[in-house]
Amino acid sequence: MSDPRFEEILAPLRANVKEQGDIVRKLKAEGAPDLDIKQAVAELKLRKKVLEDKELSLAPTSATFDRAKMEDLLKQEQMLEVDCSILTPETVLKASGHVDRFADLMTKDVKTGDCFRLDHLIKAHLEKIAVEKNTSPDVKAECRDIHTKLEGMNKEEMAAVMEKFNMKSPLTGNDLTEPIEFNLMFGIHIGPTGLVKGFLRPETAQGIFVNFKRLLEFNQGKLPFAAAQIGNAFRNEISPRSGLIRVREFTMAEIEHFCDPSNKKHPKFDDVRSTELLLYSACNQMDGKSPERHTIGSAVDKGLVANETLGYFMARIQTFLTRSGVDPTKLRFRQHMSNEMAHYAQDCWDAECLTSYGWIECVGCADRSAYDLSQHSKATGIRLAAERKLTEPKVVDVIEAVPNKAAIGKAFKKNAKQIVDALTTLSIEDIGNIEAKLDKDGTYDLVVDNNSFTLSKDMIDVKRYKKTVHVEDVIPSVIEPSFGIGRVMYTIFEHNFKTRENDEQRTYLSLPALVAPVKCSVLPLSSNTDFHPFIKELSSALTKLDISHKVDDSSGSIGRRYARTDEIAIPYGITIDFDTLKEPHSATLRERDSMGQVRISLNEIAEVVHNLSYNKLTWKEVENKYPKFEQQESKGN
Amino acid sequence: MSDPRFEEILAPLRANVKEQGDIVRKLKAEGAPDLDIKQAVAELKLRKKVLEDKELSLAPTSATFDRAKMEDLLKQEQMLEVDCSILTPETVLKASGHVDRFADLMTKDVKTGDCFRLDHLIKAHLEKIAVEKNTSPDVKAECRDIHTKLEGMNKEEMAAVMEKFNMKSPLTGNDLTEPIEFNLMFGIHIGPTGLVKGFLRPETAQGIFVNFKRLLEFNQGKLPFAAAQIGNAFRNEISPRSGLIRVREFTMAEIEHFCDPSNKKHPKFDDVRSTELLLYSACNQMDGKSPERHTIGSAVDKGLVANETLGYFMARIQTFLTRSGVDPTKLRFRQHMSNEMAHYAQDCWDAECLTSYGWIECVGCADRSAYDLSQHSKATGIRLAAERKLTEPKVVDVIEAVPNKAAIGKAFKKNAKQIVDALTTLSIEDIGNIEAKLDKDGTYDLVVDNNSFTLSKDMIDVKRYKKTVHVEDVIPSVIEPSFGIGRVMYTIFEHNFKTRENDEQRTYLSLPALVAPVKCSVLPLSSNTDFHPFIKELSSALTKLDISHKVDDSSGSIGRRYARTDEIAIPYGITIDFDTLKEPHSATLRERDSMGQVRISLNEIAEVVHNLSYNKLTWKEVENKYPKFEQQESKGN
Repeated sequence: MSDPRFEEILAPLRANVKEQGDIVRKLKAEGAPDLDIKQAVAELKLRKKVLEDKELSLAPTSATFDRAKMEDLLKQEQMLEVDCSILTPETVLKASGHVDRFADLMTKDVKTGDCFRLDHLIKAHLEKIAVEKNTSPDVKAECRDIHTKLEGMNKEEMAAVMEKFNMKSPLTGNDLTEPIEFNLMFGIHIGPTGLVKGFLRPETAQGIFVNFKRLLEFNQGKLPFAAAQIGNAFRNEISPRSGLIRVREFTMAEIEHFCDPSNKKHPKFDDVRSTELLLYSACNQMDGKSPERHTIGSAVDKGLVANETLGYFMARIQTFLTRSGVDPTKLRFRQHMSNEMAHYAQDCWDAECLTSYGWIECVGCADRSAYDLSQHSKATGIRLAAERKLTEPKVVDVIEAVPNKAAIGKAFKKNAKQIVDALTTLSIEDIGNIEAKLDKDGTYDLVVDNNSFTLSKDMIDVKRYKKTVHVEDVIPSVIEPSFGIGRVMYTIFEHNFKTRENDEQRTYLSLPALVAPVKCSVLPLSSNTDFHPFIKELSSALTKLDISHKVDDSSGSIGRRYARTDEIAIPYGITIDFDTLKEPHSATLRERDSMGQVRISLNEIAEVVHNLSYNKLTWKEVENKYPKFEQQESKGN
Repeated sequence: MSDPRFEEILAPLRANVKEQGDIVRKLKAEGAPDLDIKQAVAELKLRKKVLEDKELSLAPTSATFDRAKMEDLLKQEQMLEVDCSILTPETVLKASGHVDRFADLMTKDVKTGDCFRLDHLIKAHLEKIAVEKNTSPDVKAECRDIHTKLEGMNKEEMAAVMEKFNMKSPLTGNDLTEPIEFNLMFGIHIGPTGLVKGFLRPETAQGIFVNFKRLLEFNQGKLPFAAAQIGNAFRNEISPRSGLIRVREFTMAEIEHFCDPSNKKHPKFDDVRSTELLLYSACNQMDGKSPERHTIGSAVDKGLVANETLGYFMARIQTFLTRSGVDPTKLRFRQHMSNEMAHYAQDCWDAECLTSYGWIECVGCADRSAYDLSQHSKATGIRLAAERKLTEPKVVDVIEAVPNKAAIGKAFKKNAKQIVDALTTLSIEDIGNIEAKLDKDGTYDLVVDNNSFTLSKDMIDVKRYKKTVHVEDVIPSVIEPSFGIGRVMYTIFEHNFKTRENDEQRTYLSLPALVAPVKCSVLPLSSNTDFHPFIKELSSALTKLDISHKVDDSSGSIGRRYARTDEIAIPYGITIDFDTLKEPHSATLRERDSMGQVRISLNEIAEVVHNLSYNKLTWKEVENKYPKFEQQESKGN
């Protein structure tokens, strides 16, 4: 842009801008009317645009950029971690079944419009009747019976219960409406017309299914492969409660592992084979037995867990949860009983964690079979399948509807191509039907894009022949680990919420260093300015090693500041004191859970914290290597 | 749970479950009617629940958990990276001004309902007229004039233009509606009643503003501090286009840096002072001059950039963008001219990148003054302010409405507390008004939560006194760097999309190793099984060092596979060949951009790739240290 020839060309355009710029300045200085200024500014912008366009046209790089070519390349660059949109067209969620079935029953107060989740309302009403003094034993028994069956009741059965007990709004006593199916998805209108309907996604999985073709291509068409996604999902719960456990906007992480339905082995299964899990099988649940401990290897061998891939993910889920801070003694895998399982699922195990809310489902792990890909294939007509190499070539019968292009072209002119294309994508059944109709009536009405075209017998030649094929189509099975991130986090918080012995007021969070958001605190003993250069040096050494840390130079006692960092789960604390000022410079390193302290030289300390934070060193090893620091915490003020 | 006394208690409950479990199994085996099975399963579940509840009551840990105490602790644990909800209540966006002003003008085809963005429609219409042969020079000039002024026109002015030129729908020729203000936010209904209105957030900033109090507390009440958020935002664009540049769902990253309005210095400014930026000042834009190169230090010193904090972020934005792969020669900072700037902003600079779409705004960096916090304070009545220590104590006049609790209690019974609470939160103005009314009429009607209470003079004692204060309230200024992640990514793709010399078909992406999603490929020369143990060993060594990598053992030639990894921006490739099998084991390491290759021993190679990937080693250093591998890539098949 500094080429002098270019400047020659640009000079008059620059002068044009300046001329107008000066006018704008003058108008502003004079306090001219707003409209005059606005018009002058608009003219200024236009002149600026002319200048900029010319500048760009003189710059050689931008002119030659081939955007289409880059976009071709980018479309190939599909990583297996995907980030699909939250706004989801209705068609996608129609295919998946969510539009029709993703609903809870509710009832409304006819006057105030208050909404109640129907099962909650009935339960509460029956419980109230059952404890009333003048309720007869018969009615009490009936209440208990309904309570028992409630979960399996449909809309009509619940309506009958409401009517029988003459249920009213518990808030106002007003009448209630008939049960209403309330779809839990948030509806939105995309674009300005208000006509394009969509929803906020109720789960992240569907985005992966509709992108299946690209993901498969990225994996060179081979099974198995997996795609993962972390993101928000939305459910318009009728009455959200239970804190973090049931909310309307939540973060999910889902892995969709696509594999050959006839081979659900997993290449890394041997790595986890000896992992022990507490399994609560459907059978044990029906027998009133407790969960049992098995290695995942033996559970798969015995057929208790359906296949290696499912078992592999269960073992990995357990490792993930316990390393993140879930208490292993409060973790079990509960198998869905056949009546709980979605009708398409082959086997499903929930990783459940014991919390103050009881056992809550934190991670689901299901073999969803070929259900999802089949549904989307049906809805779009695009077959979402992979190819499987046959062990030996196979001879198959092929039926083809070969169009007579000349005859079709003559009859249908500009629609001919459309018709020919439609004929090449017909299914075997379609071809059979067309042939039968043509044989019988001599004509067939082909519908393409809502237009009907009457074909005669001479326009189609149905060919039958044999072909040797080396591959066959297979709709992959999907194994899906699905993490409710909020629930996992809540569990980790509960399992790591601790109180110091002998001090009920002093609570802290014992998060593993690996997941603690801040790894280390830096605490100068006092506000003495001599400490400042050491704080700065230490902070930059920690930053260099990617250790998140927090300097707390507030005026509280060291004990009080330790307590504060314990509360926010900071696992390690470095204290700079008056000994730090002396050579060789050193500082105190404290571990949160044991409250043990050692003395380490300043130039080693950042690396020690790094190794501790990423499980490359244990606190025990540190205590063995470095001198213990003896000052008691309680005195440290 | 294995305590034998517990098992004694649980045994009958377990038997109950088993009894019912057996019934269910029998019914299923007999093919009993669905309803019978459903009822039996419901009873089974109830019995399971009774068993589980008893089990939990026997487990001592869960019984003692103090959830409220933990929640108290969690509420304190607020990290400065926040993740606020996408679903946003209407009140928040009303306060921020989005409900009233976040709109584009559009017009609709009265018959079909097709929507057009009004400025686009007018522009296109005028351009069409201007090129028509029979258009008079006068009309042409008028078109040009309107075109110039269009950006500054309001609804009425645009309506007049539409009418004057008798504009119709460009698709159908039908009449068009009057201009309609179309709010760009997606509306939603929260909860089942349909009455609670909300929106999907149009920017992430508001979530930080409404959480200001907590964030301030986390920073011990001190200024300055910053909060950051990365997340999705949604704008219901009337006609999205330009690929990744203007979409309805996009990822934003925003930092809100809160500072004392009287002190916008930044503690780390000295670290960036000498960074050079290409600055396109408002003044140069008005003068038709080119952008100029300044150090950010001198730009702030001269007052060209308003303050240190703004300048600090501009320098950091540049470092971030160029390290991520933005071409530094295609990056400039453009200052908003005063008429472009939101009325509350003090100074605003956009980091603009030159792409095939022209210069596009990728990151905004604005001093938003105290506007946002003031607006939310006004709307909620909760003052979002920080405290500033006064250089010397100050004596101020205090007015207080002291309630006579006895009199109020006697008069209003259970409402007394509510009234007393309301009196303590009155503003100075309110107290003045109440006092005047009581003096005049002897009574005052106080409205609390929609109920009116008539207070008499004896119920309130208005006290006036002087107080010495050491701090004063200050509403912080907000400096906001706001990143459009999609635009930044698009720019990085464009700036790194390259074609090999002498081979137009061979395109690749030269992403810096630091941001390339996959750092390294592992390519066995052929499918020879002797290579397998080396692939496995290398892959696990790379995993141990956290190096994302991709094994490509497909059958293509090495040259073809290199080309494929180049396309997906993998910066380094390791090839295992027949020499690898010999001791000492070694492999070839190739760099994507130069296509240079060296030979490295297998036990060093993972660490070398790690150091290259995280900028701890340059390729030049590697080439100097290890022997060059001479085989030409083009022959490598």
